[in-house]
This record gives sequence, structure tokens and C-alpha cells, in this order.
Amino acid sequence: MSDVATTELLGLLKLGKASQVDQALDSLAVQDIADALAEIEAIDGRVDLFQRLPDERQTDTFSYLGDRQQLDLLNALPSATARKILHELLPDDRTAFLESLSADDLENHLKLLGPADLKQSLNLLGYPEESIGRLMTPHFVSVESHWTVARALDHIRHEADRGETVNFVFVTDERGRLVDAIRLKDFILARQDRPVEALMDGEFYSVLASADREEAVQVIQRYDLSTLAVTDKQGVLIGIVTVDDIMDVAEEEITEDFHKLGGAGVLTVSLKEASTTLLFRKRVGWLMILVIMNLLGGAAIAAFEATIQSMILLVFFLPLVIGTGGNAGAQAATLMVRALATGDVQLKDWFKLWGKELSVALALGITLALIVSLVGFYRGGAEIAIIVAISMIAVVVFGSMMGMVMPFILTRFKLDPATASVPLITSIADIGGILIYLTTASLMLSQGLSGG
Amino acid sequence: MSDVATTELLGLLKLGKASQVDQALDSLAVQDIADALAEIEAIDGRVDLFQRLPDERQTDTFSYLGDRQQLDLLNALPSATARKILHELLPDDRTAFLESLSADDLENHLKLLGPADLKQSLNLLGYPEESIGRLMTPHFVSVESHWTVARALDHIRHEADRGETVNFVFVTDERGRLVDAIRLKDFILARQDRPVEALMDGEFYSVLASADREEAVQVIQRYDLSTLAVTDKQGVLIGIVTVDDIMDVAEEEITEDFHKLGGAGVLTVSLKEASTTLLFRKRVGWLMILVIMNLLGGAAIAAFEATIQSMILLVFFLPLVIGTGGNAGAQAATLMVRALATGDVQLKDWFKLWGKELSVALALGITLALIVSLVGFYRGGAEIAIIVAISMIAVVVFGSMMGMVMPFILTRFKLDPATASVPLITSIADIGGILIYLTTASLMLSQGLSGG
Repeated sequence: MSDVATTELLGLLKLGKASQVDQALDSLAVQDIADALAEIEAIDGRVDLFQRLPDERQTDTFSYLGDRQQLDLLNALPSATARKILHELLPDDRTAFLESLSADDLENHLKLLGPADLKQSLNLLGYPEESIGRLMTPHFVSVESHWTVARALDHIRHEADRGETVNFVFVTDERGRLVDAIRLKDFILARQDRPVEALMDGEFYSVLASADREEAVQVIQRYDLSTLAVTDKQGVLIGIVTVDDIMDVAEEEITEDFHKLGGAGVLTVSLKEASTTLLFRKRVGWLMILVIMNLLGGAAIAAFEATIQSMILLVFFLPLVIGTGGNAGAQAATLMVRALATGDVQLKDWFKLWGKELSVALALGITLALIVSLVGFYRGGAEIAIIVAISMIAVVVFGSMMGMVMPFILTRFKLDPATASVPLITSIADIGGILIYLTTASLMLSQGLSGG
Repeated sequence: MSDVATTELLGLLKLGKASQVDQALDSLAVQDIADALAEIEAIDGRVDLFQRLPDERQTDTFSYLGDRQQLDLLNALPSATARKILHELLPDDRTAFLESLSADDLENHLKLLGPADLKQSLNLLGYPEESIGRLMTPHFVSVESHWTVARALDHIRHEADRGETVNFVFVTDERGRLVDAIRLKDFILARQDRPVEALMDGEFYSVLASADREEAVQVIQRYDLSTLAVTDKQGVLIGIVTVDDIMDVAEEEITEDFHKLGGAGVLTVSLKEASTTLLFRKRVGWLMILVIMNLLGGAAIAAFEATIQSMILLVFFLPLVIGTGGNAGAQAATLMVRALATGDVQLKDWFKLWGKELSVALALGITLALIVSLVGFYRGGAEIAIIVAISMIAVVVFGSMMGMVMPFILTRFKLDPATASVPLITSIADIGGILIYLTTASLMLSQGLSGG
């Protein structure tokens, strides 16, 4: 759907069909136009297309561009247009743009704001990074409880253009403190001469502006809200967040979880926009830590040099033993990190899950041991078969337990469970696997020597 | 917030504080009550608590329980209550429950439905699994374009109890075909004597009931909708899906991606509810495939037995070379799979990203090579240092390229990119790493011998 529209617009542009381009710019969704803009390589081309947009669609289109594209475009547009866009942007979209800027860029762009906008933006940027305050818009419609439904609806009609959304009507007391949130639907269904009070049930959800944005995601998801009230510590209503913004945040947080789980650091820009240097910096840290762990694995092998030299065949099964422990650990860690993230599993469940994971790991280990011991027997006789089988069970259990327990431990210490990344678990399982395998082998072989 | 409420309710129950329990059941959110129910081990205790719920809150609470808990509870409740709940469930919630049942259970529960509900449920279950039809509710409010705003609002007032949501009012023609979707807000803001036509702009989004639910997720997310119209192939409006249901679907799809990426198979039940057998079955398949790959890695080592025996020190660096290639591959695969899933990156971008990944991988490989060649020099002199350094660069590049390219290839062939799981990429990188490392070593050493 979107792809088609975007591709069509780009095609019309290439063919130079001016009147059809204008028609498309009039009728296409702003999201699709924003995508088409992002596809145009030359900044001049982007500026041209943007300026052809009907005046009232420019800011809306702008709000759907990526951070860097917004900056590039704003720098290339005439300053009057830039001012207009910054003024017209919804406060939450403006915060999102401003917080993506470097200190210098921020200063330059704040200068383009009028006094009222500047005050509002500085206020919103005053909330901590990743807080709800940074997400919220101070545009909302509130009514008082002693009003009649008719008066409230009149007020809503009058204010609705300012408010971003009016699916919920917020009721405040004389000090501006939130006392209820009522669906707009209930206002329409109610008799017009009744007081707002008669609609109130005192059931509403609100979050603090200073709280982590993750909390807004959870409350909106759990209670199926379309709009969530944001208050200060005194309970005064100061803004709202809407479900569409929350979906974007949820997507970002999930992307963070993915990247962490893959041991790739956390990218805050899109992969397409990320520079080589940024990608290098994000990834090199974990790789270095893991290199050190892998060197430890090497040291473990060196400690068993004599064993290996006495039976070089052992090396043949090394990748198998190392790999399988890591793979089982990756599975366990992935299941656990995701279950902790969705709330499916909580800290208190750890013991029950530990028992279940142990059973699963044992079953997996025994199954795999049966298979590989056949290969072991074929390649090196009964002794190797037994060494490989015992090691297989032990490494699968060890890897799985690491993968299962580490996310819990991290959560327990209020760290992100996804820090127990798959490469980390794999590397830990590698060292464990090497030690288990070569210890088993040296015990078995020394037994064999003394027996023979 | 939710945890507190749930824990409090469970505490009151334990203390036997009957009146306070009843008060809590009256005032707590149904989501929190559902969570408390799920925490009670004994089915009798769950039934008792459920039956203490005010009549009008029972079905709502029921709808927030997990599939299996719903089944257990329904089986344990008196059949009159079970009938009532099945009748009162919203059509989409009822479909979700019914589609989770085994054939026998489904038959038994369909018997509890009245003729109208039965017809509706069979109709909805007739749509393919994971289709939008399975998600939608046929309860919606639609008006006709020639009505006045006042008449439309009257109709909405009258029908609103049947409709799940009225944030959007759908306009249909005389044949029931969707012609527009208008925000309720616009109806309230408009003059009451104007025709509905005057509010129409012909801009609306709709999806086919037979389409994949993933499409509904994308349209709702992209265009920031709270309600999306569902039509049949003739364009007749037959249902709606709402953003809260879509968020649940999105969460499920993301969990699938996580599990696939971790090589853990796809769990359709919660990790907490999953049996040991189910977890074993989901995980053993991939582990076996990977065991075979690891055995190939072993075979690669066996092929170089002479090289290893001539310089046993090579084994010391084997875990490092194997591990690092896999880790770099894991990073690349994770970044790519997630970017493809969010739409940040598309098929046509592959070449640009390929170039960028190559630069990043080269930079990472050279950096790591510098570090480990020092260790190599210390442990085994210049020769080992050079072998390890060359191998390091080559395996990081090889692993990264595999991790980057495989998700693209899978997407190209319309397969899920997340099938390029981290364990799979790691195992491929392992084999590659072994071959690269030992080939380099044997070339260098034979050079050394002929030179010496």
C-alpha cells in the first residue's frame, strides 16, 4: 500500500509530470510523501518537492521524516519556512526533533522559535532523557466536574483544534489536579443537561512526567488506552501521551532489546542512516570483551595440552562441544529475555522455570549425546564415544542454565536482562564447554591408561 | 502499579478479609483481577474468586486471562455461567479463545453457543489462521452519507453499546460498501444540520479480512489509526480491528522474531505455560541441525590434522578464531533482521548496506587483529602472530557478511529473515573460521618449512 504510493510519486517526479505530482502531493498520505522525500538523494530535489507541498501539509509531512532528514531539510529551507515548521510542529514532535540535535544545532534552532514556543520546548526538554515528559504534548482538553455535559461539549468543540486528541476528556479540580478521565463517547451518549459529575467513576490512569517512558508503554498496553494523562508530582494534569506515539516508543525499545541480545550495542538512529564509524564504535566494545573471553577459552585448552597431544582426535569434537553448549544457551537466553520483557515471566518465577529448564536441557543433552556418541564411536571407538556423550549432556545443561539464569540475575540487580546477549552466553558456554570436555577426557584417558 | 494491585488482592484473599476482597473486586481494573486469578494455583480457588466478581465484570475479566486459563476456568464453572461468558465475549475475544482449542474442546464449546453466536463464530473461524478476519469484530457503527450530522449522532448514540469503539464513524453506501471513515470528533465539531457528506474527504484506510494480520499492524502503525476498517473483496464493510488488539498482535509477532533469532523455534503459548515436552520439541530440531554443522567443523579440523600436530599451539587460538567470526556475524544478523522487520531497510537497499557492512567488518577485523596478534606473538612468536592476525580479519569479514547477506537472501525468497538465527550464523561462521584459520596456518607453516 505505502510502497506503491511512494514509488508512484517518485515515478511521476522522474517523468516530470508536474500536474500529476501536485495532485499526488494533495491526496497522498503525508507518511507516504515523507517516505518519497527520504528516497530522494539530492537535497535540492528534496527541498523542491517539499516546497511544492500545499502549505498546510508541510509540517505534517515533516513530522514523519527521520531525525537527520529533518535537520538536513530544515537547514536547506528558507528561514521563514523553517520558522513556520518549527512553530507548527506539535510540541511532542518538536521535542523529538530538538533532542536529536547536537548542542550547536540545538542552539541555532532554538533561536528560530518564538518566545512561547521556546519556553514550552525548554520546559519539555527539561525532563530527563527517555522520560514521559519528553514524549508528552501539553495540548489537551480538560473540563470541570460541576459543568453540565452541554457546557463541557461546547468547551471541547472550542478547544478541540488545540488538543491533539479528544478521545478522552479529562476532568480537573479547581487547582488543575486530575480527578477523572472520561471517554468522549460517554459525553455524546449522556443527557446534555446533566452535570459532568454524573459521568465520573473516578477510574483513570495517569503517569508522572518524570517517570521512564517504558512505564507509559506498559500502562497504555495493559489497560488498552488510546490516551494517557501525564501529571506532575502534585497530581496536576500537565500533558497527555497518545497510543500512536507509544507504539513508536515500544518499537524503539524492542529494537534496543534486539540489538542488545545480538551483542551489537544500541543504535539510536536507523541502520540505514548510521555511519560506518558509528556502527564500528557500537560493535567493537562487545567484540573486544568477547575476544578476552575467547582467549580464556584458549588458555583452558593450553592447560590440557598434554591430554590433547596424547589423543589429537579430541580436537575433532571440540567445535561440536563448544558450539552446542552455546546454541542451547542462546535458545534459553532468548526465551527468557523476551519473557521477562513482555512480563510473561517475573523474578518470583525463577525457581519454577529453573526446574523446567533443567528438565528440558537434560532431555536435549541426552538426545544429542545419543547421536554424537555414534559418530564418536565410529571415529574413535568406545572411549571417545563415552567422553563425547558425557560432555554433550554436561555442556547443554551448563549452557542452558547460564542462558536461563543470567537474565534473571541481571533483572534482580535492576539491569537490563538483554545484556545477557547471545554472543556473551555463547562465549561463556564456550569456556565451560572446553573445560568440561577436556576434564572429562583427561579423567577418562588417565583411567584408561591405569586400567590398560 | 498493576503488580501492587494484584499482590494486594491476593493478600486480602489469604487473610480471608471477605468485605475488602469484594470491594477490591468492585474497584480494581479487570486486567489486575485477571492477573490475580492466574496466580492462584488451585482451580477451586480460581472458581471461587471468579464467582465472587460482580456479574457484569466476569466476562471482561475472563477476556484478559491466557488461553489455557480460560479453558480451565470455563470447564470448572457451572455450565450456565460458561454459557453466559461465551455469549457476552466480544466476537474477536471469542474467536481468540475458540481458535486456541483442540478439535474436541472446540466442539464442546461451540455447543454452548446460541444460534446467532454460533453462526458468527463459525464465520469468523472460517478465515485463515493469522488473517485479519480472525482478529476483527463485526460490531461497528456505520452511517450513510445523505444523513444529517444530527441523525448520524442519534444513530451513533443508539448503536454505541453494540459497537466496540466509536472513535471512527464509518460511512457506507446503499450496498454497505465503505466510502469514508470520519473521526467522531469531527461529528461533534460539525454543525448538526449539515449532511454527513459535507464532512467526507474520501481519505480512509481499509484492509481485506482475508489478508495477513501483519498488514493490519503495519497500516495502523504507519497511519496512526485507532480503528481500522475491514472489508470483503467487494469493499463491503464487515468488521473493524482496534489498535489495542493490534498491539497484542504486534507483541506476538515480535516474540516470534526473538525466538526465531535465538534459534529456539516459535512458542505460541507463554513460556510459563509451556510444558517441558513442548519446549524440548521446539528446541531440539535446530540443535540437531547445528550439531551436524558442528560435526562438519570437526571434519574440517580433521582434514588439517597434520598441520595441528606439527604445531599444537594452533589449537590454543581455535576458540578465539571460531568465536569472533560468530560474534561479528551475530551482530550483523541481528541488526539486519530487525531493520528488515521494522521496514527501516528494504530489499533494494542491500547493495548500499553490503558496502557499509564490509567497511565496518574490515575496521573491526583489523582492530581485533592488532590486539590478538600481540597475544599470538607472546605465546608463539611472529609466525603465530601473523597467522592469527590474518585469520582474525578474514573471519570477522566472513562472519559479518554471512550475517548481513543471509537475512536479505531469505527475504528475497519470501522467507522470514529471522530464520537466519544467531546460532545458525554462528555455526556457519564457525566452519568458515576453522577453514580460514587452518588453511592460513598450513600455508604459512609450509612456507616456513621450505624457507627454513
